Amino acid sequence: MVKVGVVGFGVIGQRLADGVSLQKDMELVGVCDVAPTLTVRALKEKGMPYKLYNAMPENDELFEEAGIPISGTLEDLVIESDIILDATGAGIGAKNKLLYEKHDTKAVFQGGEKNSVADVFFHGYANYEKGIDTDYLKLTSCNTTGLIRAVDALDRSVGVEKVAITIIRRVADPGDYHRGLTNALKVEKAPSHQAEDLMTIMPHVDATGILVHTPVTHGHIITCLASTKEEIDKEKLLEIFNKHPRIRVVRLKDGFLGNASLFRYARDLGNPRGDMYEIAVWEESIVKSGKDIMFAINIPQEAVVIPENIDAVRAACGMQKTREEGTSKTNEYLGMGKWL
Amino acid sequence: MVKVGVVGFGVIGQRLADGVSLQKDMELVGVCDVAPTLTVRALKEKGMPYKLYNAMPENDELFEEAGIPISGTLEDLVIESDIILDATGAGIGAKNKLLYEKHDTKAVFQGGEKNSVADVFFHGYANYEKGIDTDYLKLTSCNTTGLIRAVDALDRSVGVEKVAITIIRRVADPGDYHRGLTNALKVEKAPSHQAEDLMTIMPHVDATGILVHTPVTHGHIITCLASTKEEIDKEKLLEIFNKHPRIRVVRLKDGFLGNASLFRYARDLGNPRGDMYEIAVWEESIVKSGKDIMFAINIPQEAVVIPENIDAVRAACGMQKTREEGTSKTNEYLGMGKWL
Amino acid sequence: MVKVGVVGFGVIGQRLADGVSLQKDMELVGVCDVAPTLTVRALKEKGMPYKLYNAMPENDELFEEAGIPISGTLEDLVIESDIILDATGAGIGAKNKLLYEKHDTKAVFQGGEKNSVADVFFHGYANYEKGIDTDYLKLTSCNTTGLIRAVDALDRSVGVEKVAITIIRRVADPGDYHRGLTNALKVEKAPSHQAEDLMTIMPHVDATGILVHTPVTHGHIITCLASTKEEIDKEKLLEIFNKHPRIRVVRLKDGFLGNASLFRYARDLGNPRGDMYEIAVWEESIVKSGKDIMFAINIPQEAVVIPENIDAVRAACGMQKTREEGTSKTNEYLGMGKWL
Amino acid sequence: MVKVGVVGFGVIGQRLADGVSLQKDMELVGVCDVAPTLTVRALKEKGMPYKLYNAMPENDELFEEAGIPISGTLEDLVIESDIILDATGAGIGAKNKLLYEKHDTKAVFQGGEKNSVADVFFHGYANYEKGIDTDYLKLTSCNTTGLIRAVDALDRSVGVEKVAITIIRRVADPGDYHRGLTNALKVEKAPSHQAEDLMTIMPHVDATGILVHTPVTHGHIITCLASTKEEIDKEKLLEIFNKHPRIRVVRLKDGFLGNASLFRYARDLGNPRGDMYEIAVWEESIVKSGKDIMFAINIPQEAVVIPENIDAVRAACGMQKTREEGTSKTNEYLGMGKWL
Repeated sequence: MVKVGVVGFGVIGQRLADGVSLQKDMELVGVCDVAPTLTVRALKEKGMPYKLYNAMPENDELFEEAGIPISGTLEDLVIESDIILDATGAGIGAKNKLLYEKHDTKAVFQGGEKNSVADVFFHGYANYEKGIDTDYLKLTSCNTTGLIRAVDALDRSVGVEKVAITIIRRVADPGDYHRGLTNALKVEKAPSHQAEDLMTIMPHVDATGILVHTPVTHGHIITCLASTKEEIDKEKLLEIFNKHPRIRVVRLKDGFLGNASLFRYARDLGNPRGDMYEIAVWEESIVKSGKDIMFAINIPQEAVVIPENIDAVRAACGMQKTREEGTSKTNEYLGMGKWL
Repeated sequence: MVKVGVVGFGVIGQRLADGVSLQKDMELVGVCDVAPTLTVRALKEKGMPYKLYNAMPENDELFEEAGIPISGTLEDLVIESDIILDATGAGIGAKNKLLYEKHDTKAVFQGGEKNSVADVFFHGYANYEKGIDTDYLKLTSCNTTGLIRAVDALDRSVGVEKVAITIIRRVADPGDYHRGLTNALKVEKAPSHQAEDLMTIMPHVDATGILVHTPVTHGHIITCLASTKEEIDKEKLLEIFNKHPRIRVVRLKDGFLGNASLFRYARDLGNPRGDMYEIAVWEESIVKSGKDIMFAINIPQEAVVIPENIDAVRAACGMQKTREEGTSKTNEYLGMGKWL
Repeated sequence: MVKVGVVGFGVIGQRLADGVSLQKDMELVGVCDVAPTLTVRALKEKGMPYKLYNAMPENDELFEEAGIPISGTLEDLVIESDIILDATGAGIGAKNKLLYEKHDTKAVFQGGEKNSVADVFFHGYANYEKGIDTDYLKLTSCNTTGLIRAVDALDRSVGVEKVAITIIRRVADPGDYHRGLTNALKVEKAPSHQAEDLMTIMPHVDATGILVHTPVTHGHIITCLASTKEEIDKEKLLEIFNKHPRIRVVRLKDGFLGNASLFRYARDLGNPRGDMYEIAVWEESIVKSGKDIMFAINIPQEAVVIPENIDAVRAACGMQKTREEGTSKTNEYLGMGKWL
Repeated sequence: MVKVGVVGFGVIGQRLADGVSLQKDMELVGVCDVAPTLTVRALKEKGMPYKLYNAMPENDELFEEAGIPISGTLEDLVIESDIILDATGAGIGAKNKLLYEKHDTKAVFQGGEKNSVADVFFHGYANYEKGIDTDYLKLTSCNTTGLIRAVDALDRSVGVEKVAITIIRRVADPGDYHRGLTNALKVEKAPSHQAEDLMTIMPHVDATGILVHTPVTHGHIITCLASTKEEIDKEKLLEIFNKHPRIRVVRLKDGFLGNASLFRYARDLGNPRGDMYEIAVWEESIVKSGKDIMFAINIPQEAVVIPENIDAVRAACGMQKTREEGTSKTNEYLGMGKWL
């Protein structure tokens, strides 16, 4: 049993903890945060299913006032864990790394950190092998993770030469009050970092793109125009995506009208928090553009990176030595593709 | 075991079905809809935990195409049930009633129906006794249900003479594409029906109010100014609300900043779909206005009426003969107030 | 002086009337609607600068109650006009056409009508010559009009072979209460009609695209990937756009962060209603994708079609016989490009 | 001619400058800002109708790069002016005051400053006399200004003892990218400062209230429950409001459905930027609550304070010695009440 600690118990951290809990070959040592946030309070109301560590001892009092039991410090958690999934805010992971190094604990960082924090910039499906037996990995961000799933699947089947993407980004997560946009679209300087990150992970592909923020909270939508080596039609694309356990093909005519339908569907499925690990591709969005092919993807930003994070644990700890074995184990324990 | 059927498997219907399933003294016969909606498709993906009936036989083919098994017609469900929770769209319940009458099946209608559809306009806490052993009850709508919980609690303690409310209404549910509002507040003709409905249920109280629609999806917020018989201060109000199993007192300083915080908290709690049965009152919103008292309530519109619907089954079927017993059983099986 | 009547005095109609008023070689006969809408009431409060005709005589009473003087019927307006700008709702133009034919009055229809209503599907810059001396023209819709301005400019300079677009569409106009979207993105069946319309106007270009509705009111944003005959770099693209009187190049670093900045800027300019006739292209959005080039355009949906509608009057009435002369006159009287 | 300078050329400042320009007995010396913002760039594109001063000489270069001519420093403007309308961000006015004092220049500060910055907390209708011949005044904020107009009108007619308000606040102005809220309502600690400010201006009235932020940009809506000395009915209230030149009574049935309708109407009127100086009260929102009366007000947050700022200039400079004369002059030059 690989012992996993989760540092940062926010939007991503709590989902990582749940994901790790579902892995029969991993043990969740505990989770760590710095204050009795709403998520931590919910953990308490649920009866503390996970042990909680406090990375900011000067806040012990706040936890006490809120009646929330603490199992130790961040350093305690690092010592007890074989590997840390670090889901802290951008830049904090780099600071935490000193502690991970001190105790020879491996760590996986999230997309907000700089690439230099890690030995490998990692994606479970695209470059699993690069992560094997390494100490420090950085995961791609939510949009990049989801996008690469689709582009990698395409690439392995027909070869991808170039992609041009438009990211229609949700600007805040449900419940966010520290950021937001009201009745405004916001354009970012191009090319978007997601296109550049894709090229770092898949250096043989030329990628560019434009990102526009929109005032919604449930899921980014990416349109992707792919130039493939071997020409591909809609049926072939559907075939590729339909057999991928982390891609769900959906249809407007079934009622999947946009990102909000997918969130509703995930809630109706009874998924905890209405989470969805898989990306979705709309069947009716697929069109040919000359020899190229274009389609629209939904990225459920809160949960999409969980599987690839679990993959990262498998790779870093050498639990499975191939991409197929590693991702399959993750998929099995997360129940991915069971709709197929 | 009282046999309960749920007709209409949408936002409210699916939550009613879940709520009934949790009652150890009720049996959910099945649920009924007319087409393979997203919610019905999710039921299928979950492995059909509930039997599904089809009220529109001409659509059997659509269900078949979607691979969704049908257990019978609406009439079959009515025959097999002791009581129906009718959660169909406004006006359809009145039509369905003919079928319920034909088979001597009791029924509970939702707030969208006209009052004339029922013998009693019902609220579990405010007038449980009126519903005992009746055949047709109509529940109050989501805002009214939540509001009456608070006003009834206040009334039983210090007597309420008058309330003036402002309803800041969420305009659509998450996932709704058939309605919405973009960057606009919409004023409704006053007095709002919720104030009028409150007076129907609690005729000794004078109520009025103004409703304004806002472009959000997670929870209405009502400000309520109450004139009480016995003067009341903030501490007393908190005491009353704090011991009510269907009212949650929350604090801005703990991070509950608005309706979106409550939705996030319910998701983080792991509640199915992020549902919350209880209303919330913000501690820091409570202020005195001369002798009157004012406070802000959060109404989680998707799930708030579930407990009172269950109460209605208990009353109509004579399962418990007093308000205290009836509501306590509902609360017990729904796990309400466990945060206390 | 060409006599112009405007039928339909809504979002587009009132802007057409203003635009026509500014043309020194046209006379605005009057405007026509069917009820005392807010826009009509505003016309009255302004002192009736335009004569108002009523297309629905049974509503004469409503206008009278509101104190709004009527100058005649729709037929009166048609008789008095040489050409009608029909800005009624989709499908109504086709019915009105019978009246236009009856009185040999030319007409220009808007994008919501079917192509079959007109002899020519028209765009001032792309196919002015086709509209010369014709009787019935249909304008492209707002997105298509703006998009074609950019693609046509590119085409005339370096030749365009293919475009792939993503339309990030505002879902409602400011003040709309009859439609809206709340916290949801909505995907449309691809290819979008805008891509197909572009191919009708510019048959030598291959076009496709995906449209996603977003909950905002101020301006669509289109990302456009263009494959050109002659390779083009960012500087050359800027040069082409910078000299176009209907395209405004803007910069993120100057504070133009998105569609809302442009609306604010147009308001601050003192433009009536905060209208903007020109599209905008963000300098920092321009990126190369292999040999192709990609950029983001802002489409101010309320006013963008006004110049091309004026062009259509010029073409249909033979006022100017070339694209250069026709569009230049329109630009001169509308004050376009004065920022250059 | 009183010489007026405007310091801070943002949302409020540019509207103050326009308002002053319309006063035949005032001269606008110029406006002042610190950088070539979008609003300043628009001023340039309009041909510099106002002289611009730069309060941050180290930014002269930025203005130069943007081709925007500067007429002097902040100190120059202060010296040339009899009175300054300071519309800078919260806290900056207090710093600027040192300069105003140095040159014996009077000043009017906005609602964001602390009360201690000024000798008088001012509202043109409620306490004009207090401002006469004073040096430093602070205006009420947008919500308070609009609210007091209504409450003062009521008070002068039937006497107001108590008000309880709910403020449904727009969270950002159109074009704001530095703040916003997405799909969330945000509750503020009660009582709201607007209620407290009302009591400072009208000390004989008891006021309290709750404020909720909503994700819209066009106009706050306040519901106000007023307890009056003399009982008042709907007709009487309408009579009072209908004759007030800064209050517009509107009707749902005429199409004024909410804040967005009023913004649209102001745009359709051709008001610069779609501004509206007057508050609106919905006729159909007026309801009795026992002896009290309740109604809903629209506050056009960008422009509502302009008239009272002009009043403040009149009072401070002793231009008119009574409330009636002072506010009448302002109204005359701003064209207020011309719809009556």
